[in-house]
Amino acid sequence: MSGGLTRLPLADGLTRARSLAEAEIRAALAHNETPVAEAMRYAATGGKGLRAFLVLESARLHGIEPQIAAPVAGAIEALHAYSLVHDDLPCMDDDALRRGQPTVHIKWDEATAVLAGDALQSLAFGLIAAAECPPEARIGLVQSLSDAAGVAGMVGGQAADIAAESAATPLTLPEIEALQAGKTGALITWSAMAGPRIAGADPAPLRHYGEALGRAFQIADDILDVEGSEQAVGKAVGKDAAAGKATFVSLLGLEPARTCAAALVEEACEALAPYGRDGETLRDAARFVIARRS
Amino acid sequence: MSGGLTRLPLADGLTRARSLAEAEIRAALAHNETPVAEAMRYAATGGKGLRAFLVLESARLHGIEPQIAAPVAGAIEALHAYSLVHDDLPCMDDDALRRGQPTVHIKWDEATAVLAGDALQSLAFGLIAAAECPPEARIGLVQSLSDAAGVAGMVGGQAADIAAESAATPLTLPEIEALQAGKTGALITWSAMAGPRIAGADPAPLRHYGEALGRAFQIADDILDVEGSEQAVGKAVGKDAAAGKATFVSLLGLEPARTCAAALVEEACEALAPYGRDGETLRDAARFVIARRS
Repeated sequence: MSGGLTRLPLADGLTRARSLAEAEIRAALAHNETPVAEAMRYAATGGKGLRAFLVLESARLHGIEPQIAAPVAGAIEALHAYSLVHDDLPCMDDDALRRGQPTVHIKWDEATAVLAGDALQSLAFGLIAAAECPPEARIGLVQSLSDAAGVAGMVGGQAADIAAESAATPLTLPEIEALQAGKTGALITWSAMAGPRIAGADPAPLRHYGEALGRAFQIADDILDVEGSEQAVGKAVGKDAAAGKATFVSLLGLEPARTCAAALVEEACEALAPYGRDGETLRDAARFVIARRS
Repeated sequence: MSGGLTRLPLADGLTRARSLAEAEIRAALAHNETPVAEAMRYAATGGKGLRAFLVLESARLHGIEPQIAAPVAGAIEALHAYSLVHDDLPCMDDDALRRGQPTVHIKWDEATAVLAGDALQSLAFGLIAAAECPPEARIGLVQSLSDAAGVAGMVGGQAADIAAESAATPLTLPEIEALQAGKTGALITWSAMAGPRIAGADPAPLRHYGEALGRAFQIADDILDVEGSEQAVGKAVGKDAAAGKATFVSLLGLEPARTCAAALVEEACEALAPYGRDGETLRDAARFVIARRS
């Protein structure tokens, strides 16, 4: 299916994805030296590039070259960056540190953070519209990104997360799963499905992969919040416990949470069966998600 | 060109546009009773519907039925509503009143206002993607809306406006014109160009109309800030003068500003020459923009 496009090892794939996505965002902002544009570039720099990588790798599995998928990888990193800038605002999670650097509202101010996030979201949809794949494929990507990012997806999950902090009773496990499916899962799943969407192919196996990966990712995040150091993670840790917030770890316990995440990674890997050995880097990505230290 | 589609009087056209746009937004949010979805519906209700009207009327001039253009009208009203919700935030213009009602962060809270604005922007692009016109036309609408809404358009203008408030010297007239072309003009021009874009026709006359209309609109806004009452305008007035902000009125004087707005309305009307008598309701809209009291 991949038409013989070379499969890179995971580390190289992540580096390339990050660099291609950042290049797309920088090119779109070229010659704009306003503080908001500076803040947009800043916010879109220094991430793991996992979502961009999922776009490029799922595209490769369907014979789509990196230069065709790159604007779509840039789009999801712009969208993800916007969500982090707004999540970090004082009225939201109120975080001063992100990716080991001051958050946008700390380095600039709140108004710049609101506007940079807003413009990163606009940019995401513009990058997809300008991609060099058939108009029907681009429309499918726009429509599905709107769903994944909006009130039925990421924003809905984020709102439920904030509501949970002031709720009288802690969330149950199914409630946390629903919340996280929106907050984190929707964009990860969208990224994994982008390749078949660009190619006009069946996205079902990669939807299954993405959903399992997203759930594993969030459990790993909860574990990092308990076990990680601020220096390694690059953002404040221990916040969930301090806030008395129900998480996968608080509800399941640390070891069962680890077991559950490992089972989800296994499920994600098995979902890639139709791709055979060609899916190996995506399997490595799933394993990386629960092994990471940041 | 309009294929005999009935031309409504302006007041009826505005009412229908508002109602069709709100219906699109409500349908997209159906069965979602979360506070963020409530806030989205609230924010998208009660406006003049000018932008939705420009979409429907420019569509009619190109033989496009209202039901085809309605999702695009819903999209621009969702986008406009998002921009108002975020503009009103305490870290931005800090307004408690909008369209005669409490702003979203007053009625709910700041986090809900940030998230509702974010999800309204996602929704705008989703509504366009789901419209029933050719995929190429939808892609053109997505791409141009991304440009109009983003850092080179509306967000850029808003950022320049905020920067001007703390600048050592007041802005010059050309600087104000550039700022307003982004902040207000970009979405108004986009709305006027939507019809030919849906139809795959030349948007040049409606671009000219929209740009002149947008400039007239902003001068009228500056005049309202000086002359209007809070009750009639539905938001706080007198803010510019209190902030010592340079506006069209402070730089030109009240009467010359009025003359300038009237000349721009004349220019907008003349740009519609290719549409002959069929453009009369859009001409009425231009006259309405400088005659309005809110």
